[in-house]
Amino acid sequence: MNGNLSPRAIATTRGVCRHLADRGMAPVTEVTLATGRRVDVLALGGDGSLLVVEVKSCAADFHSDGKWEEYLAFCDAFTFAVPPDFPTEILPADQGLIVADDYEAAILRPPAARPRLHASRRKAVTHLFATTAARRLRGLQDPAVADRLERSA
Amino acid sequence: MNGNLSPRAIATTRGVCRHLADRGMAPVTEVTLATGRRVDVLALGGDGSLLVVEVKSCAADFHSDGKWEEYLAFCDAFTFAVPPDFPTEILPADQGLIVADDYEAAILRPPAARPRLHASRRKAVTHLFATTAARRLRGLQDPAVADRLERSA
Repeated sequence: MNGNLSPRAIATTRGVCRHLADRGMAPVTEVTLATGRRVDVLALGGDGSLLVVEVKSCAADFHSDGKWEEYLAFCDAFTFAVPPDFPTEILPADQGLIVADDYEAAILRPPAARPRLHASRRKAVTHLFATTAARRLRGLQDPAVADRLERSA
Repeated sequence: MNGNLSPRAIATTRGVCRHLADRGMAPVTEVTLATGRRVDVLALGGDGSLLVVEVKSCAADFHSDGKWEEYLAFCDAFTFAVPPDFPTEILPADQGLIVADDYEAAILRPPAARPRLHASRRKAVTHLFATTAARRLRGLQDPAVADRLERSA
């Protein structure tokens, strides 16, 4: 994990995760969806809601990657998260926006209202969230088993 | 975690978790249910099934604790797990049994057939599994946030 993330992206991701934890959401970073795409942060709320956070560390990072729209079908809410000096005017004005560094995070725009996920999709994404978190946790608690966990994923 | 577990219980738990990972299940240790009771291992299968494993490290550990029957209502399958020298004849003959140490695990009796969980109970226990795993993982990845995660749990 974090193998090819810039220090800025890592700091923004960490700040967002702290922010989400403060709001009672449980975040997991780098979750690979059934489509093979990997979301930066997937967070599960107390009510079962699923939030996707797409971290963009700089303008080039945003312009080089248009895959965020594919994530909308897998969550109840979507938001971008960027560092404080990001040129936010380049982001879609109709999507959520969080500005975060290692220490603080502020919601500049809340996520847009979206239709709730269909029950079967919610079940599948929640299951993916749960197994990703559990396997990664187990791999940290018992490094010897990390290889087996990957194989069974 | 593991604060008051014996080395034998820790080894048995680790062996069981390796065994479950090999079977394609994602295990999380020490999960506190809505009742306040804490199960030793809760594992989520690829099909969404929920397995509870109760680890008993010695005869006294079994005799001093009758709370395992309360777990049956929270899972699709239940099994005991014990170390190789455990006097297995003292365990209920109609419940599952895994013998495990750090390196190997063997199913001596499969879990008894049980009614599938009601959908709302399954949803609640899966949510608990997911948030427990995600918060614990995040606490390991970002120790500074562990306190916040506990407060929001």
